[in-house]
Amino acid sequence: MILETLITTVNASKQAHIAPMGVHTDNDNFIILPFRPSATLDNLLETQTAVINYCDDVRIFSGCLTGRRDWPLEATKTIEGYYLQAALAHDELQVERIEDDPVRPKVFCRSVHKSNHKPFSGFNRAQFAVIEAAILVSRLNMLPDEKIRQELDYLTIGFEKTAGSKEREAWNWLMEVIEQHWEKSA
Amino acid sequence: MILETLITTVNASKQAHIAPMGVHTDNDNFIILPFRPSATLDNLLETQTAVINYCDDVRIFSGCLTGRRDWPLEATKTIEGYYLQAALAHDELQVERIEDDPVRPKVFCRSVHKSNHKPFSGFNRAQFAVIEAAILVSRLNMLPDEKIRQELDYLTIGFEKTAGSKEREAWNWLMEVIEQHWEKSA
Repeated sequence: MILETLITTVNASKQAHIAPMGVHTDNDNFIILPFRPSATLDNLLETQTAVINYCDDVRIFSGCLTGRRDWPLEATKTIEGYYLQAALAHDELQVERIEDDPVRPKVFCRSVHKSNHKPFSGFNRAQFAVIEAAILVSRLNMLPDEKIRQELDYLTIGFEKTAGSKEREAWNWLMEVIEQHWEKSA
Repeated sequence: MILETLITTVNASKQAHIAPMGVHTDNDNFIILPFRPSATLDNLLETQTAVINYCDDVRIFSGCLTGRRDWPLEATKTIEGYYLQAALAHDELQVERIEDDPVRPKVFCRSVHKSNHKPFSGFNRAQFAVIEAAILVSRLNMLPDEKIRQELDYLTIGFEKTAGSKEREAWNWLMEVIEQHWEKSA
């Protein structure tokens, strides 16, 4: 099973880095697949720890993809690091082993601490639409414009019916980047 | 903002009814819009209470739409009723007023108790694909086959990449109903 999460890591000087990332999970076991090169991979190798944040504020996903990487953090409990203040829950991970790969090494981790901060408030179709649109933005240079347009048309229907103000802000940040991309390639 | 939730209500004899339903929300205020006639509407009028369950087990959404309505319940804390054992969190609601309507009365409610049972485990694209497919199933007779096929093709991509076993079970129940519908209309 793959979850769309926000991973916070630190380097040896405790400087934090936030990155949206799909994570393979099976109970307390996780596989993170960061691209090479990336700050997340460097930090994982340096500190052998990471935090997985379970967050329903989709502005953080959208923000990290559109140059808004500064989100409030709190100190973790059992490892050196930070979790997102907005997280509903988080897992603190210890790296167990790494399967190297020239493109995406597999980093096998185990949860050593889980916190439940705030209640889940249910599925929201607009949040899903933002996550899917964020995935499109992360692949803008790989996908044909027509496919992006079609998928956005579909996602817009559920988005418009169900979005709150946070979802609209997150969506608008992504649409700005897509429009800039289209203007450049036009 | 609209959330896709599971609403549990009881009648005067405390018999429970579970229904997947979109709910308008603004902090502790909720608007439920049950169709007329429906067990949820009857129960809301009879007992003036309801429970909103925030659940990431999508089998309950899919199950309620495909004849599997029997899911484990627990007694509520402040009102007479039940919440779903699988709920990550739930709100216990008191009806405040009703705006009548021949098709979908608006039932304005207020949360009188909130429980946080289990941590949210993050966004999963397959769970959202099941929710979107469940919405398609609830509108099978209103939508053209071609539109349903196109949307399912799109949803299948994210679903196949990210689903766990619960999501696969929920998805298969929906696909059975869609295939039966197509066989009948062929």
